[in-house]
Amino acid sequence: MDQKDQGSIEELLEAGDLSAAAGMLADLHPSDVADLLEQADEDRRELLIALLRPQFDAEVLAYLPVDLRDEVIERLEPKALAAAVAELDTDDAVDVIQDLDEDAQQAILANLPPEARALVEEGLTYPEYSAGRLMGRTLVSVPEFWTVGGLLDYLRAAATTDDSDLPAEFYDIFIVDPMHRVVGSVPLSRVLRARRGVKLNEILHKDIRRIPVTMDQEEVARLFRNYGLVSAPVVDAAQRLVGVITVDDVVDVIEEEAEADMLAMGGVGGDDLYRAAASTALSRFRWLAVNVLTALIAAVVIEQFAGTIEKVVALAVLMPIVASMGGNAGTQALTVAVRALATKELTKANAARVIGKEGLVGLFNGLALAVIMGVIAYLWFNSPLIGGVIAAAMVINLVCAGLCGALIPFVLDRMKIDPAVASGVFLTTVTDVVGFLAFLGLATFVLL
Amino acid sequence: MDQKDQGSIEELLEAGDLSAAAGMLADLHPSDVADLLEQADEDRRELLIALLRPQFDAEVLAYLPVDLRDEVIERLEPKALAAAVAELDTDDAVDVIQDLDEDAQQAILANLPPEARALVEEGLTYPEYSAGRLMGRTLVSVPEFWTVGGLLDYLRAAATTDDSDLPAEFYDIFIVDPMHRVVGSVPLSRVLRARRGVKLNEILHKDIRRIPVTMDQEEVARLFRNYGLVSAPVVDAAQRLVGVITVDDVVDVIEEEAEADMLAMGGVGGDDLYRAAASTALSRFRWLAVNVLTALIAAVVIEQFAGTIEKVVALAVLMPIVASMGGNAGTQALTVAVRALATKELTKANAARVIGKEGLVGLFNGLALAVIMGVIAYLWFNSPLIGGVIAAAMVINLVCAGLCGALIPFVLDRMKIDPAVASGVFLTTVTDVVGFLAFLGLATFVLL
Repeated sequence: MDQKDQGSIEELLEAGDLSAAAGMLADLHPSDVADLLEQADEDRRELLIALLRPQFDAEVLAYLPVDLRDEVIERLEPKALAAAVAELDTDDAVDVIQDLDEDAQQAILANLPPEARALVEEGLTYPEYSAGRLMGRTLVSVPEFWTVGGLLDYLRAAATTDDSDLPAEFYDIFIVDPMHRVVGSVPLSRVLRARRGVKLNEILHKDIRRIPVTMDQEEVARLFRNYGLVSAPVVDAAQRLVGVITVDDVVDVIEEEAEADMLAMGGVGGDDLYRAAASTALSRFRWLAVNVLTALIAAVVIEQFAGTIEKVVALAVLMPIVASMGGNAGTQALTVAVRALATKELTKANAARVIGKEGLVGLFNGLALAVIMGVIAYLWFNSPLIGGVIAAAMVINLVCAGLCGALIPFVLDRMKIDPAVASGVFLTTVTDVVGFLAFLGLATFVLL
Repeated sequence: MDQKDQGSIEELLEAGDLSAAAGMLADLHPSDVADLLEQADEDRRELLIALLRPQFDAEVLAYLPVDLRDEVIERLEPKALAAAVAELDTDDAVDVIQDLDEDAQQAILANLPPEARALVEEGLTYPEYSAGRLMGRTLVSVPEFWTVGGLLDYLRAAATTDDSDLPAEFYDIFIVDPMHRVVGSVPLSRVLRARRGVKLNEILHKDIRRIPVTMDQEEVARLFRNYGLVSAPVVDAAQRLVGVITVDDVVDVIEEEAEADMLAMGGVGGDDLYRAAASTALSRFRWLAVNVLTALIAAVVIEQFAGTIEKVVALAVLMPIVASMGGNAGTQALTVAVRALATKELTKANAARVIGKEGLVGLFNGLALAVIMGVIAYLWFNSPLIGGVIAAAMVINLVCAGLCGALIPFVLDRMKIDPAVASGVFLTTVTDVVGFLAFLGLATFVLL
């Protein structure tokens, strides 16, 4: 949105000119309204919602993060909300409704017109994150014996009837057989180039991607990306055409999946920017609690060498360096591996090679850091032995970090555990334990 | 790609039936060929490239990660490569060529037909990561006084001439004035619904997003996502139509940007899965070297309390827990903030609120961890004082971690430094220094 528009609405609200502000709001794109709501503080948000309520455009909800969406929905009345939702395409309506709690869902569904309600309820029966939840229901499908001229006449006639069920926008004409199975599709630009007498089955693409209604949305996104699709037919188990997925829905999925991986690796369950502090703290605590365990295991390892540390206190000064450099190098390997798993670049076929390479990378950087830290420790504590010990520990921990950084996410993925969520804890445990054990163990052996 | 297809090609190669394998390869989608190349080991890759070489489809290059692309290009001859690149749309050709080194670029450009060469060279003059690099040049633009019928006749005629410069696929008709400035656009589905006599200026969308040719690709992606665009006109400084960006290019950008942020936060400069170990190690070393500094600063802090640790060795056992829990909690806040900056959800307008909230979240989880660690430390070392000290240090470090986790990326972003790259080092320094200082400092004060 233009900074200007946003500024003027702010000014109008400051000046108390609510009707002018409401007028400007009505002209904004739903995504811009969503932006305004996101950036407003509590009071301003309440005021904005009050202004939007009389003619609320439910598409705004589709652009809001889930937490904020719940808040906005609570402030709208079920009837007004249902009226707004009824205006949405089925896929957007399902998207908005699916994250609400049971009561809110029922309140909206009960107020929907029967036909829309049936479609939305059917959409909700598909598994979460499946193609069935993403797909729209309105599409253009015609038999293959039609000509381009016949198609144009049909579309022009359909466009002028009042209860037209043509989608607002579409990109492909789907060609179906008498059983309503998809035979192929014709991109609109091909229709436009063809003369009226041309039969659709002369210009259709047969080699198209049909999306099973139960396919996971991540897989759907990969198909769209790999094959540069703009829309694709969704089919049921009998290969019958049941819906269409368009690329704008997929763009959201790609965003969500990338965001989910990034947040998971940072130890955050979901985008919690709009949640209250207490609820955010609670949701993040689980991750911290798991990490306390990791930290305690490392502490127990250190305790085994309490006698050594008491005699050579320099070890206590240096030991966090070994552990944390292992953690950093391991995280590098881990990040590349988690990403490669998400994009299917890391598979069983090349896993051994990738893991071996990470071990080698760990060895190279371990040697480099060994020289640096060895010299620093030697000069700092005037002891070649301490320098030698930290150098050796560095090499051991970084090789280990490289191997485990690639191995852990790969194994978790094989075990059907999301590597983005769980890898970090295991890796830190390894790099802490190995780091302290190697450094303090070697020191005990060499120095005492 | 079907696992089956991949399996059969593997089998044919194993069996040495190269001509059958080459036949199957020729039928594959370029993205599937790219997948095969990615997952092959060195020898297999060489064999695949040899099979592909005679009729190499340059679109395969567009689907390969940069490192692997370089490797494949090296194995092709410049002439064969230029012939392949000449078949690409200008935007894909620019995409493939832009990452090559100067010599390789010149070798390909010299072998391109003059017209294609001029377009590609012009494409390369736009700044990297700009709309100019992303856009395609072939598009359909017509004057606004045309009718739907005239447009259809024009397209049908253009499609049958040999040197047609219609794009293979297009989604919008751009309407231009006599100065070639964009007046509006008509989605194809609107053209199809309109009768022949309808003037284009009756059905055009005037309120469309025009993309300046210098706009950053990240901004382009945000426009497409926010407004659900499928294609958009690119205009020069005089508002003249110079190209078109379609959503498939943008899907790649969204992927790349999300990936870049995630890799940066993990301390990795770019996807290095296909690079050799030595080159990977070198590229990651810079990040590790910066982190050595951080670790050394923490070590210097610890050294100040060497006397205390010598007397109470339990402190050496417990101190890493305080630092690492601060690091974990800070990373949570950091991840949310970096993500919110990337999606423009965190702005100057709500920064104070978000940072304050993170401080509060740190306080809540700090108190919870203080109770847990306080009790554990008390029981472990049978000392209520040690329990009290670690509890207090925990609260201090987690509040600090929350505040800095949100503040650091925000400040870096204001300073035009990529927060995904640089935030982590600063945060770790803070959580380590504050963690050790609070814990050992309090311990010195209370226990000695």
